Amino acid sequence: MIKARVTVTLKNGVLDPQGKAIEGALGALGFDGIGQVRQGKVFDLQIETGDQAKAEADLKAMCEKLLANTVIENYSISFA
Amino acid sequence: MIKARVTVTLKNGVLDPQGKAIEGALGALGFDGIGQVRQGKVFDLQIETGDQAKAEADLKAMCEKLLANTVIENYSISFA
Repeated sequence: MIKARVTVTLKNGVLDPQGKAIEGALGALGFDGIGQVRQGKVFDLQIETGDQAKAEADLKAMCEKLLANTVIENYSISFA
Repeated sequence: MIKARVTVTLKNGVLDPQGKAIEGALGALGFDGIGQVRQGKVFDLQIETGDQAKAEADLKAMCEKLLANTVIENYSISFA
């Protein structure tokens, strides 16, 4: 069994109003000098296989098909 | 300037219906042997300071106050 983490982040240049709102809220809470806040998603999952190469290929396919919108998002895969 | 990433994940035992839905969708797409899908959030931000210790203390305060609900979520901080 392999534990994997997929991180999905917005591509550069894609507007992130949620990130902007968080940046504003942090400023209102008194945290100064915070900039470029971008929010993304993370998926932790377990794969029933011992073959890490196959797991990575499967995870890439999952990202392309479901987990990420590759028009506006990047994804990265890491193993625990 | 320090670039930091905050990862917020649900604590063990907290139900994650969104993760379950993703698990079901992956199964429906033909990906077998996927389990324990949990969705979390990731925040990338830049801090205008050169002092990493201060940045880490500030980030912890931000997580406690805004970025994470520490009743049901864990957070981790990493630097790029």
